[in-house]
Amino acid sequence: MPYRAPLTDYRLILDHVVDFAQVARTDRFAEATPETVEAILTEAGKMCEEVLAPLQRNGDLHPAALENGIVRTSPGFADGYRAIAEGGWVAIAADPDHGGMGLPMAVTTAVNEMMAAACLSLQLNPLMTQGQIEALEHHASDAIKALYLPKLISGEWSGTMNLTEPQAGSDVGALTSKAEPNGDGTFAITGQKIYISWGDNDFTENVCHLVLARLPGAVAGTKGISLFLVPKRIPDADGNPGMANSLKVVSLEHKLGLHGSPTCVMSYEGATGWLVGEENNGMRAMFTMMNNARLGVGGQGIGVAEAAFQHAMAHALERRQGTSLHGYSIAAHADVRRMLMTMKADVFAARSIALACATAIDMQTATGEDHWAKRAAFLTPIAKSFGTETGVDVANLGIQVHGGMGFVEETGAAQFLRDVRVTTIYEGTNGIQAMDLIGRKLADGGDAAFRLLDEIEAFAETAKGTVPDLAEAVWQASETLRETTEWLLDQGDMDERSAGAVPYLRAFARLLGGHFHLRAAMAEPGSAREVLARFYIERLLPEHTGLLAHAMSGAGGLYAMSLDDLAA
Amino acid sequence: MPYRAPLTDYRLILDHVVDFAQVARTDRFAEATPETVEAILTEAGKMCEEVLAPLQRNGDLHPAALENGIVRTSPGFADGYRAIAEGGWVAIAADPDHGGMGLPMAVTTAVNEMMAAACLSLQLNPLMTQGQIEALEHHASDAIKALYLPKLISGEWSGTMNLTEPQAGSDVGALTSKAEPNGDGTFAITGQKIYISWGDNDFTENVCHLVLARLPGAVAGTKGISLFLVPKRIPDADGNPGMANSLKVVSLEHKLGLHGSPTCVMSYEGATGWLVGEENNGMRAMFTMMNNARLGVGGQGIGVAEAAFQHAMAHALERRQGTSLHGYSIAAHADVRRMLMTMKADVFAARSIALACATAIDMQTATGEDHWAKRAAFLTPIAKSFGTETGVDVANLGIQVHGGMGFVEETGAAQFLRDVRVTTIYEGTNGIQAMDLIGRKLADGGDAAFRLLDEIEAFAETAKGTVPDLAEAVWQASETLRETTEWLLDQGDMDERSAGAVPYLRAFARLLGGHFHLRAAMAEPGSAREVLARFYIERLLPEHTGLLAHAMSGAGGLYAMSLDDLAA
Repeated sequence: MPYRAPLTDYRLILDHVVDFAQVARTDRFAEATPETVEAILTEAGKMCEEVLAPLQRNGDLHPAALENGIVRTSPGFADGYRAIAEGGWVAIAADPDHGGMGLPMAVTTAVNEMMAAACLSLQLNPLMTQGQIEALEHHASDAIKALYLPKLISGEWSGTMNLTEPQAGSDVGALTSKAEPNGDGTFAITGQKIYISWGDNDFTENVCHLVLARLPGAVAGTKGISLFLVPKRIPDADGNPGMANSLKVVSLEHKLGLHGSPTCVMSYEGATGWLVGEENNGMRAMFTMMNNARLGVGGQGIGVAEAAFQHAMAHALERRQGTSLHGYSIAAHADVRRMLMTMKADVFAARSIALACATAIDMQTATGEDHWAKRAAFLTPIAKSFGTETGVDVANLGIQVHGGMGFVEETGAAQFLRDVRVTTIYEGTNGIQAMDLIGRKLADGGDAAFRLLDEIEAFAETAKGTVPDLAEAVWQASETLRETTEWLLDQGDMDERSAGAVPYLRAFARLLGGHFHLRAAMAEPGSAREVLARFYIERLLPEHTGLLAHAMSGAGGLYAMSLDDLAA
Repeated sequence: MPYRAPLTDYRLILDHVVDFAQVARTDRFAEATPETVEAILTEAGKMCEEVLAPLQRNGDLHPAALENGIVRTSPGFADGYRAIAEGGWVAIAADPDHGGMGLPMAVTTAVNEMMAAACLSLQLNPLMTQGQIEALEHHASDAIKALYLPKLISGEWSGTMNLTEPQAGSDVGALTSKAEPNGDGTFAITGQKIYISWGDNDFTENVCHLVLARLPGAVAGTKGISLFLVPKRIPDADGNPGMANSLKVVSLEHKLGLHGSPTCVMSYEGATGWLVGEENNGMRAMFTMMNNARLGVGGQGIGVAEAAFQHAMAHALERRQGTSLHGYSIAAHADVRRMLMTMKADVFAARSIALACATAIDMQTATGEDHWAKRAAFLTPIAKSFGTETGVDVANLGIQVHGGMGFVEETGAAQFLRDVRVTTIYEGTNGIQAMDLIGRKLADGGDAAFRLLDEIEAFAETAKGTVPDLAEAVWQASETLRETTEWLLDQGDMDERSAGAVPYLRAFARLLGGHFHLRAAMAEPGSAREVLARFYIERLLPEHTGLLAHAMSGAGGLYAMSLDDLAA
């Protein structure tokens, strides 16, 4: 499947939409000059186009399989992984003290997106490792850091996250896996975990599991959970992977998509583990890991959306049906063009949101300023939800553009939808993201939200001279979001906010997309960027009015009907 | 997969939402009394629940296969088909003169929906036969009718439609299959056809193909197309299937879903065919068949949506995660309930639209009055598009309600999405439906549209005393639709209408849904029906404002960007 890295878009967004220059002006990221970033993205893009994209179909047609307890990966995946590891792409944001490049999260976000676009099922592997590196950097002892981080960062070893148990999905606090002290500082971990992405593989010499479990006497709920590092093979004194640990892959899930990524049921049977962070404080470390993983999953959605768009665009330019004044291909038909422009405009919006979130994370890292931390925290659930919804919606439109051929698997359009479908679910469902947004992320009294709205309105003011109608539409949308945000903050009962959380999140994403499109139009007035911004602001942004009506409808109407009546 | 026929909904909709009583008051359908209809739907529902629903997974797990040129169907499908045929459910609307029951299309629509819900891939078989019966009843010679209709209506033989060729999909006029006169009144048909649903099977003794082809010297485009009946086995003088015709199944498509339905590439190699209708007027007959098939495909979407809702509802009642004041299952969480109520409310809206369309067809049949014909024609593309979009959207939400389990195939949630995905594409893509709506269906100067809007507003007036806020919201939405319809009619350039055709169609469906929900609320004020109507009108209906802004944005913005820039 040909794939072309969207380097021009990254450049425009970094330069003119999310003001990445401020990151490069900090001491911490002084090396991230435009030239360096350009070189890195070009190199990563080349690897994605040439090495990873040809593997995408392999993963689908030849799924990972469990053979005698060993996971056999799809043809070519070992080579693809080697290219990722040898290029240094596993974790380019990681700490240079342990072999990382210490690059900004904005660069990581773009690289992750390209790898996801090229081969989502393989990209999920280093994405999991990145989360583990992040958790270890922040919470592990120096000894564990020194032993594990270089191996993980180089890609010699890979990492997984083990949260879910059959009875404990979104409700992590219900988990029952146990950790018993061995008396030598290690723990014996026992329990079963499900949905473990890349729980094993045949191309890294070790697989390191971060496992949530309960110490003896721990309280119920999330406050009695601790985090343990449990390697597949226990490192010897020299740090080489030694004897096998007491854990195994029990089975692989048969999934709608992502067939190249083995989703494992893992069994821990007194496996040796090391505590990461404090006892009973495992959720804190898990949240560190999950927050960045959420942005990463948003990027997965955007990557697949970009790939699905390119795939549909190529088909539309080639396929001839009927006649139009505007040309010979189906891309000349108004409705096909509507679909293609929707895809392109939404990819741009979602990508800008993700890079704005990453930029905020970088500014937080570089400056330690609280308002950046708040912005990063506020934008993360939006980037995750809107990125993944865009993945699903664009892949769905990609099938539609293909007509009957879209339903035939050989075309490849359907795989994008099957693969990306899980992204609105894992790393916290999009419903959970929206609860996070209207709960913890508004717990600052709306400070992060209102600062964003202030910026959006200030920018719209400056744009009024150039594109008055577009600027006015964005300004008005921002005012509507402001009123809705105030309404949400006025609700004492959290159910009242929750009832409209998902539509509120989407409306906020729609507004942010309008703002970022407006910035792109102002950067290149009169260009195709302005045409796309106009398309988005005139045709897609108005979705927010219906969403906000929904967002302010409250919980009463949801509970006015009994479950029996609902099921009737 | 358990499935429960939604008999209470049909009863309410027929009695209070679409005024089916007017159909039963006609001479033509005098037998369709409430008691008779109730008995028929109960009996059909029982067959769907007990015989068809258990086959749904079989079709997915054991796809139809081509073995030595013969199609082998999924386990149990032959028995399922026999139950359909022996129950008389293949074509209950067909002419009693040839063995049909002559029942109203509204009853057919409900029965088709239930069969689709229970086992979509098998239901597609009789749906195709229904279309063929309709075409033959209207256009075939008496001899053909006498020979074929009894066999098709009894289900002994099945029917297919052969339109598409590789270079001629939505552009039917581009087809190149040939028909040469044999000199004995028959024709030799030669060509290749693709996407032929149920092009063969191993449970009917004959398969009758309706094939579009060109006679020698026919003009290019749709005006040079004729329709031929081409049986798999040529009937002998007694009407028994005799020698094999010169046609074969070349291959089956490997599809995203609907694995139980063999989608065939057919090859006709001088096969013997009989002309149906006039020479070069095949498109007319094809449209007869397609119009009702479009309503039927809308019903497929609704059926799958109902089944996906029931499946998700059962999961939500069983699954426990976290705690809520409102109960112990995840159905107690506000956002899960939002999803479930959205599914239920949209199924009700889509089902009401389909039954309103069917009722208009019945009134047209019974009275011959032009305004009913116009209403049926206007509602058909809306019923098709909104029914199938609801199928996709509700199946998608069903996966989301399941969380991680939704991505695992064993759960069954994903199959609904995979199966139903094709319905927005076949029988004319939803883009084609929208073009039809803003083109031919507004060619009466908007008469059908404005009559509907008048009725909606008149009903809203009567509802103002009981549910003033809901009535006002529907009335306002209708006014907005009126303005948009007038704007569309003012556009001389069809591209200007086409640019917003899809959002316009969806907005019209949203309004119709609001109207029908309001009728249900007025039928049972203070009941769960009113709660559901309030949910729909307050939270889902407002989507129309954004859609109508989109609908009136015109074509300029779509063509202001070059294809090179779009693809960049």
